[in-house]
Amino acid sequence: MDLSSISQRIAKAQELMAERGLDFLFVAPSSDMIYMFDGPSHASERLALVIIPQSGRPEVVVPQLEYSRFADKASIAGIHTWPETAQPVDLVAELLSGIEKPKVAISDKMWSVFLVRMLEAIPDATYSSATPIIRELRMVKDEDEIEKLRIAAAAADRAWDEFATTASIIGKTEREAATMLTELRRKHGLDITGIGICASGPNGANPHHSTGDRVLQEGDAVVFDFGGTIDNYHADVTRTVFLGEPTDEYRKVYEIVLQANREAVGAYRLGNTCQDVDRVARKIITDAGYGEYFIHRLGHGLGLDGHEEPYLVEGNDLPLRVGMVFSDEPGIYLPGKFGVRIEDSVVVREDGGEVINHSNRELTVMS
Amino acid sequence: MDLSSISQRIAKAQELMAERGLDFLFVAPSSDMIYMFDGPSHASERLALVIIPQSGRPEVVVPQLEYSRFADKASIAGIHTWPETAQPVDLVAELLSGIEKPKVAISDKMWSVFLVRMLEAIPDATYSSATPIIRELRMVKDEDEIEKLRIAAAAADRAWDEFATTASIIGKTEREAATMLTELRRKHGLDITGIGICASGPNGANPHHSTGDRVLQEGDAVVFDFGGTIDNYHADVTRTVFLGEPTDEYRKVYEIVLQANREAVGAYRLGNTCQDVDRVARKIITDAGYGEYFIHRLGHGLGLDGHEEPYLVEGNDLPLRVGMVFSDEPGIYLPGKFGVRIEDSVVVREDGGEVINHSNRELTVMS
Repeated sequence: MDLSSISQRIAKAQELMAERGLDFLFVAPSSDMIYMFDGPSHASERLALVIIPQSGRPEVVVPQLEYSRFADKASIAGIHTWPETAQPVDLVAELLSGIEKPKVAISDKMWSVFLVRMLEAIPDATYSSATPIIRELRMVKDEDEIEKLRIAAAAADRAWDEFATTASIIGKTEREAATMLTELRRKHGLDITGIGICASGPNGANPHHSTGDRVLQEGDAVVFDFGGTIDNYHADVTRTVFLGEPTDEYRKVYEIVLQANREAVGAYRLGNTCQDVDRVARKIITDAGYGEYFIHRLGHGLGLDGHEEPYLVEGNDLPLRVGMVFSDEPGIYLPGKFGVRIEDSVVVREDGGEVINHSNRELTVMS
Repeated sequence: MDLSSISQRIAKAQELMAERGLDFLFVAPSSDMIYMFDGPSHASERLALVIIPQSGRPEVVVPQLEYSRFADKASIAGIHTWPETAQPVDLVAELLSGIEKPKVAISDKMWSVFLVRMLEAIPDATYSSATPIIRELRMVKDEDEIEKLRIAAAAADRAWDEFATTASIIGKTEREAATMLTELRRKHGLDITGIGICASGPNGANPHHSTGDRVLQEGDAVVFDFGGTIDNYHADVTRTVFLGEPTDEYRKVYEIVLQANREAVGAYRLGNTCQDVDRVARKIITDAGYGEYFIHRLGHGLGLDGHEEPYLVEGNDLPLRVGMVFSDEPGIYLPGKFGVRIEDSVVVREDGGEVINHSNRELTVMS
């Protein structure tokens, strides 16, 4: 990202800070740091922090060892390094000392250990979440970001289609099957941090099942939830397959979930709120008699985080805006039996959603 | 981990809490959650929290979707699930409501977004870091933990020795070379989250260089810093090699760093403090005339985190205890030229350190 784009994002944040009477925005290493400052995302026990004041240039507090990660920002920010033996929170206190009772907004993933130290070192400050500021910026993606999400989605799609058409997974454990898919994800260019979810048979009824040692067998429905990043932007896809000849119950449930996934797409449009989209998918599943088995929200924002604001959940009346990107992931979970989830990523457009995943989502049998 | 081990760790924490007048310990998904509760380490936007009171059973606040991850603890803890549309911090406030002005210690890596919400929902509480409690427990490893660290170290050593004796890296980029080593780390059983550091030529003078696209060439010193986990316990190793015939300056610097690495081992013993160990290595490098180029602490604790308390750094007068495990990683960094770092993991014993890495650390040439 070039320096002028960073400066533009900072200027937008400062406008929002002024509207809300915030004196400082603290950006910690995380996706927020990538977005606001093209900076490192890896948090550690050594405090690194970008302090954005309501007006004027940002100040960076950084361990001497990490100076090089911020050196290219020296023309747009003050850079304050601290040596191995120092207490960096004292440096933060000093940088805030010009303002009495400062109002500070903190990026969500900053480790609490630093906030706890600040509560002590800067006791007259008031702390709030930076979400209202940073969400406002991050939730609407520009065309560059959408292109990156599209590239990540396409890689995940290629990995899935190759997996679904070539892999034999009956007799493998969940972990082995997930590892096969992981290798294909890597092959198609995704950076991977975990093996994702492979939830087979009754395990599929738990949407957040921890991939384990259960052996996949004929008659299982198997849920694969997988992703990865390219250039820091996330793919997030779920596909469900059946091993062997699908049962009537599976066929019925699968078609309902697929219908909910497909018909929700039209609701990703200007004029709807976040909860409206959830309601569209939920109504289809509820009308089919399975409402109580759709036990999670319809979706989450997707971008530099795999899950990010805003969320498509009942109670969230935030209006959609063109350029927001969400998952569309209805599911039905039948305890003791199986689960079905189908998940794509969808860009909000004026008249409805643009689905950026194109891998096969028709009823699929694997062996 | 069996339930009685968990209960023992909780009881120890409660003793320490009583000594310090703490009412509650908040354990968030992180290495602390693995250690204290054999629970999940993956943090997300959905609050999951183990609340340990000064006496009595822990209370778990968990999203309904994640219930299964805590179900096996139902006999030793109260489990409180919250649905997708609820505000879980209200549930936390309710669980604390029996005690006026509660003193709460927070595990370091809990996301600030949750602490910020607690500041608002439980305004009469006082918050401090859980480090004094949790460090006290985690810093001394039992023999089971040391065995796990040994297994991880051995896997990293096998990966390194195979890499150093078989790989040809001249003409590859840093990223390509690091990826080759990463594949060997996986082959030898390590779970990997990043490609580690490959810092070549002048890049090696930055201890935290971000592995990039520089092409390795004859005449380069190349620093490889790499790790991974097995069963959640970390390996952390650094080796430095030369491409082609080493220069006299490189040989000299390498021998000084190796001497510091080797002679420090004896200082990992009962009776020394953390800073004493740092001083032993630093004196060797300083006496050789390179003190100003050893720009970081000697080491960090190693266990469920790759970096954890305590740290071997000037100013830390914590006495060593038998069973602590640290890195031993002196380095010399010559700006514009090259860097050398040699890192092993060392267990503190009565009479000196037990080095658990055994891969070759003599001056090594690669092509």
